[in-house]
Parts: sequence; C-alpha cells; structure tokens
Amino acid sequence: MKNISIGLFGFGCVGQGLYQTLNQSKNFAGYIAKIGIKDPRKKRELPSHLFTTDALSIIEDPKIDIIVELIDDASAALEIVVSALKAGKSVVTANKKMVAENMQLLVDLQKETGNAVLYEGAVCASIPIIRTLEEYFGHEPLTEVKGVFNGSTNYILSRVFHDKLDYETALAQAQDLGFAESDPALDVEGYDAKYKLCILISHTFGLHVHPDQVLNLGIQRIKSADLEYASAHGWRIKLLGHAQRIEDKVYAFVMPRFVPINDNLATTENEYNAVVINGEFCDNQWFTGKGAGSLPTGAAVLSDVSALSYAYKYEYKKESHKENVFFSNDSPVKIYASFQSPEDVLLNDFDQVIEKYFSYDHCYVVGTICLNKLRTEIWQNNPHINVVLTADTLDNSLGKLCVNQLKVEIDELKKGQRLRKKLMLQL
Amino acid sequence: MKNISIGLFGFGCVGQGLYQTLNQSKNFAGYIAKIGIKDPRKKRELPSHLFTTDALSIIEDPKIDIIVELIDDASAALEIVVSALKAGKSVVTANKKMVAENMQLLVDLQKETGNAVLYEGAVCASIPIIRTLEEYFGHEPLTEVKGVFNGSTNYILSRVFHDKLDYETALAQAQDLGFAESDPALDVEGYDAKYKLCILISHTFGLHVHPDQVLNLGIQRIKSADLEYASAHGWRIKLLGHAQRIEDKVYAFVMPRFVPINDNLATTENEYNAVVINGEFCDNQWFTGKGAGSLPTGAAVLSDVSALSYAYKYEYKKESHKENVFFSNDSPVKIYASFQSPEDVLLNDFDQVIEKYFSYDHCYVVGTICLNKLRTEIWQNNPHINVVLTADTLDNSLGKLCVNQLKVEIDELKKGQRLRKKLMLQL
Repeated sequence: MKNISIGLFGFGCVGQGLYQTLNQSKNFAGYIAKIGIKDPRKKRELPSHLFTTDALSIIEDPKIDIIVELIDDASAALEIVVSALKAGKSVVTANKKMVAENMQLLVDLQKETGNAVLYEGAVCASIPIIRTLEEYFGHEPLTEVKGVFNGSTNYILSRVFHDKLDYETALAQAQDLGFAESDPALDVEGYDAKYKLCILISHTFGLHVHPDQVLNLGIQRIKSADLEYASAHGWRIKLLGHAQRIEDKVYAFVMPRFVPINDNLATTENEYNAVVINGEFCDNQWFTGKGAGSLPTGAAVLSDVSALSYAYKYEYKKESHKENVFFSNDSPVKIYASFQSPEDVLLNDFDQVIEKYFSYDHCYVVGTICLNKLRTEIWQNNPHINVVLTADTLDNSLGKLCVNQLKVEIDELKKGQRLRKKLMLQL
Repeated sequence: MKNISIGLFGFGCVGQGLYQTLNQSKNFAGYIAKIGIKDPRKKRELPSHLFTTDALSIIEDPKIDIIVELIDDASAALEIVVSALKAGKSVVTANKKMVAENMQLLVDLQKETGNAVLYEGAVCASIPIIRTLEEYFGHEPLTEVKGVFNGSTNYILSRVFHDKLDYETALAQAQDLGFAESDPALDVEGYDAKYKLCILISHTFGLHVHPDQVLNLGIQRIKSADLEYASAHGWRIKLLGHAQRIEDKVYAFVMPRFVPINDNLATTENEYNAVVINGEFCDNQWFTGKGAGSLPTGAAVLSDVSALSYAYKYEYKKESHKENVFFSNDSPVKIYASFQSPEDVLLNDFDQVIEKYFSYDHCYVVGTICLNKLRTEIWQNNPHINVVLTADTLDNSLGKLCVNQLKVEIDELKKGQRLRKKLMLQL
C-alpha cells in the first residue's frame, strides 16, 4: 500500500484526533505532511515546520495526495474543498454545515472533476452510517431515517431527566465538559442536527434538501413544567431528527419529542447518538455510537482517508430515482405546545385541538398543526412557546393533508367544478 | 450497469427472499438465470425451465456471472463454493456453518483464484456488520465483539420473560411460528451463534478460529428456578456470543448470560439481533436489526450481489496482524451453575466458589471457573447442569489466570528460584 501524504486543514479537537488515530492504527500507511492553520502564533504540540498559513501551497503541492478539511468556518471550508477538487485532489471533510448547504454543488463537482468528497465524520462521528446507506442499503427501498444526531443536547437532556437539573444548569455543565460550544445556539436550536439530517436525506432518498427548507425547533425553551408533564406520562424528551417517505413525499424536521421511557431512543444517553432506518426489506435497523469527541470523529475521518486510498467514491445510488420523490412541509404533525399566557399561541393555527390546559403560569395545547405553520415567524421566534412532538405523533398525522392545504384544495376543486360547468355550458 | 445473471442454489426461505428483493429493488440490474435444486418434484412458483438438478451446468455456464449459494447442507454448500471459485466465478453465500468451519480455506481460495466469496447474509441477516468491520473499522484497534446472534433463542427467551412461559412452551411456539428449526439443537445449543461469532472474530481480530475451539453452552437446560433467580435480581437471560481481546489473547464463547433489565442487550427482543463492538478509538458501537427472515436475509444477499457487480472483495485487513494475537480458553469466567443434586457438580472444578445454595430440588453455585474446564465432558453433557454467566462476569474475571494455570506458573517460579539458588551456590 502506498504511503499516503495528507494535507490537513485545522488542528483542533478532530484534527488532533486524526493525528492520534493515524499514529496508533497498526495497519494504515499514511502521514500528515502539512497542516494549514489560521493563527501561526498559537502554541502547537507538533514541530513548527508542519504548519503553514498558506492554504494554496498545500492544495497545489504535488507531493500531497489528499486533503483533509477539519476547520470550523463553513465558507472557508467550502473554499478549500472546491479548490482541492479543482486542483485534482480528493477530500475528506467533517464540516456538516458546509456539506449540507452545498450538497448539490459537491455532487456536481465530484462528477465534473472525477475526484471524491467523503464526509462520514460529519454525521454522528463514529457511527458508520453514510457508507452503510451508500453501499449496503443502496438497493433497499428505504422509508425512514431518524434519530438522536446531536451529542450536546442529548447530554443536556440526559442530565435534566436523570439528575433533575434545570435546563440552564445542565447546559452550563455540558459547556464546562466541552460537550457544547460556548455559543450553544447551533446545538440547542437544532441546526447541527438539521445539517446531519439533510446529509442523511441525500443518501437515504436521493433528494438534496437545503437546510433552509427544513423546520428545526430546539430544546432551548423547555420549561420545568414541560419536564413534569413528560415525567408524569412516563416519557423522556429527546431532540430528534426525522425524515420519512410517504408515497412520493419526503417529510423532514428536527424537533424535541416525547419518547416513552422503554423506547430505545430514550435509552440513548449522554453523548451517544442513534441512527434508525426503516426499509421495505430490512425493516428496522439501529446504529448507536459516540456522536462526538476527538477520537471517535478522528477515527471516522481516518476511515474515509483509508477509503480514498483505494479510490472509493460515493455513488449517490438513490439519486437516479429522486424524480419520483419530492420534499414537502405540507403535513400536519401532532404536537404539545406550552406557553406562558393564552395570547402567545393562536389556536386557529392548529388544524385540530385535542387538549387545552390554562393556568396562571403555564398553558399548553395538544393538537395537530401543519409543518409549514410551525415555520412561520411567531412559532419560530416567540421565546415563550415550547413545542414538543407527542409520543404518538407520527403514527397519526404525518402524510395527511393539512387543513389549510385541504381548504386550498377544496377551493381548487370548486374552481375546477365551476370551470367544468362553464365549459359544459359552452359546449 | 451490466445486467448481472445469477446462478442460484436453493430456493427456500432466503432464496425466495432474494427473488422478491431483486424484483422489487428499483435500481439494481440483475436477474436469476438458473436455480439449482435437489428435489425436481417439489412444486415451485416459478417456471420449471429455471430449475435444474445439474449443479455443474450452472457453475460452468459462461452466460452466468455469479453464483449465489443458499442451501442448508454445509458440505454440499462448500462443494458448490469451491467449484464456483475454481471455475472463475465469485460467490455469495449465507451458510454460516460452512463459512465458519472453512474460513482459512475460503480465504486461501480467494487469494489463489482472484474470485470473491461474500457472506454478509450469514451473520445477523440485515445487520451490515461484516462489510462495516472490513471497510469502516479496518484500521480501528478493536477490542471486543459480542451480541445476540440468534433470533430463535432470543424469541424463546423473550416469551419466557414477558409471557412467563416455560422453556418448552416457548420453544414450541417459536417452532409453530417458523422461528426455530424442527430440530432446534443448532439454535438452542448455541451452535448457530457460535458459527456467526467465529466469522466475526475473523473480521474483528484477523484470527481464523475453528468453531470446535470455541465453547458453546445453550439455553436448553434453563429451569424455572433459574428464571426466578434472574427475575429476583432484576435480570433477564440472553444467549450471548462474546469475543474479547485482552493484551495478545482473544477469548471467545457462546453462553447464556444474566443481563440487567435496563441494559440495551436486554431490550433486544424477539427475532432482533444485536452486534456490539468496542474499539480503542470509536469506543462502543451498536448495531441492531432483524437477524432472520426471508426479506431481511434476502436483502443482505442482494447487497452482496450488488457489491460483486463492482468487483468488491473482503480484504481481511486485520489478518496481517494476527501473528500478534492468539486464541485462548485459558481464562476464568464467573458463572452461575444450577443443578439438581450436589453430586452433579464438582466443586473442585471451580477456581473460586463465591455462593453456594442447596435445597431438595434446586442447587446452585456462583463462582469462577476456567473456560477450558467448561469444555470438558461433564459440563458439556450433563443435562442437569445449567450454566449462566453472571451479570458482572467480564469485568472481574476474563483475562486473569485460571487457578490451575496459576499453580503451574507458581511451580515454574519455584523451579526457577531453585535453579537460581543452585547457580548462586555454584558461583
């Protein structure tokens, strides 16, 4: 096997994890030839001649075989990946935001240049899900992909339920332990999980859905009354990413959900992630593992580097059938919405209200509401509203018509009938 | 993509599953050209010109691209696989006994002929574990592979604990539902799980261990007193396959084990299988899915057929390091052994006895005992003895020296000291 020389960008948590796994792995012939960094003054543990701030000198170095991009900044990451592909080099990246927001571009560029972009480390770290979807389930008619995709929020929710901490204390603890970013918005508002969900959708259904199209509601507005409500019903709350195909539509969203205590999703705790897929042949498949951390993510990156060494590429096998499926937010979901005072929530937004509870300091409604409605200003930005999917939500509502949608359709139908009458009269 | 023509052997449960998944899969170009069968008089749902009893005519047909072997008989299966490889054809098989008992031969023949043998369907049906070990964890220093590998016994144990059925009733129910063979020995005595474990050991540690070397104790001797003992402690009983590397030794066995109710292994129920691996980088990884059934296994076979279409082969990446690890049964394990009367069990066989209980109709001992001792006649064949690994067994005992072993070492040490004294006197 050729001794592969790697041009690495970024030497943070994951970059150092890659360095360590490369050194400790017994049967992989590869080494880090050069490391591109932003701040040359930062103290590093490796010899200084390995580091450079000149990105192009790495990308264009003919002695460097492949590029591994492990920086935080999504637009700088995109620039590196695009330049590397155009310069004739294949790339491994773990930047989920960059991949999710530019999937179509990356697919096109891979076809154009013949070089590969692999990004297993971008989705649930050590869980080998992208390659498994591509290779193993490439011919399986998959119907669903869902799971716990964010380790930080899962750690927070585990602490909240097990140690009875309130949300703020658990978040602070997660930050102290390095599980959450100092700006935790990406994690707790569900963006990180959404990027991963979008990447999974590409490989599950062959649809490239831009993250902007997908609803994400986070865990940042959960109140202790919500936790009590969950516990009283024998439930936990988990932040779930969910994508499901029903006939020719794919519905997807990231939302907190009530999960029965004995459900395997409820027992996925702390920094662990879970990915669940369902297919017509294979039925229900679970993958669980550490979704974050220097070594688990480093090992995922190493695995991609190894795949590049034998010229592996994603084939995007499901893409050839994407003309048959469409992304849609036109579906009701059954939610629990809690809020501070009755005027916070417009009951008219619901397709159907099943339960209502109002008291001086806590109100909630259980009912069905259209995904499109949840994407509007008031539901997105009112800090007093907390939304949690009910435990039975998907069995009941997903894939049905929203009432508003139904009204439009009825109007269309009436218009059609009038038109037909008119035509009949003319005949 | 080339339209691959398949020569199929066997048209039972899995063969028909492959036929169905091939037909329903939207993006796979392949078809079954010919089916080799044993009994030409049996009524079939497909046109008769597809069937033949002449195996060679399929294997040597130049219009047939690959061979898929899905028959029950392990020695006939081996003959088909060997002939096909030698005739220049790659093969997919789901025969775990044949693969496990002939791993070294199959590896050598693949190297010799340049053709491939894939056998994902042989291990836990729809769980994509072999390919994942090969490709994704090829460079990961793995330390453990374990899990619930047999759907029939897992169904029986689920019914025993959930419906409070006794063992015989649950077995009869499993047989009625087609989950267990009419001769259930292969399942309930742990042979089926052992074949899978041996195949997993090859791809996890690069060691080809013959099934005869590995201890298997089944669930057929579990008595209601054992179930009560488990329940009283808040445990379930699961039949587990387990292989673990400790320093340069790999220990492996199939045995029933007490599992705490909240352990994920305990919540793997009915015909579901679970495979758990542990690695130095990736830490703890779980894979769960249906371990049996026509479509899940058929889909696994289809996935291998698809892999052959782009010339995929197992590389046996870990094999290059096998000189560093050795298989061993020289380790104590901590067990619960129940028996009918005190003379059934030789207390002297134990390295250490921790608990003893004797009554008129039920006796048990908890203690540590060497794996090698459990492989002797009396422990294997006495129908009155039931052995279950304790819930904490592996944390405490595996990898330590057996007491017998220890005695030898002490003798050696004493000899060495005497020798040193003698040498000192001579100086």
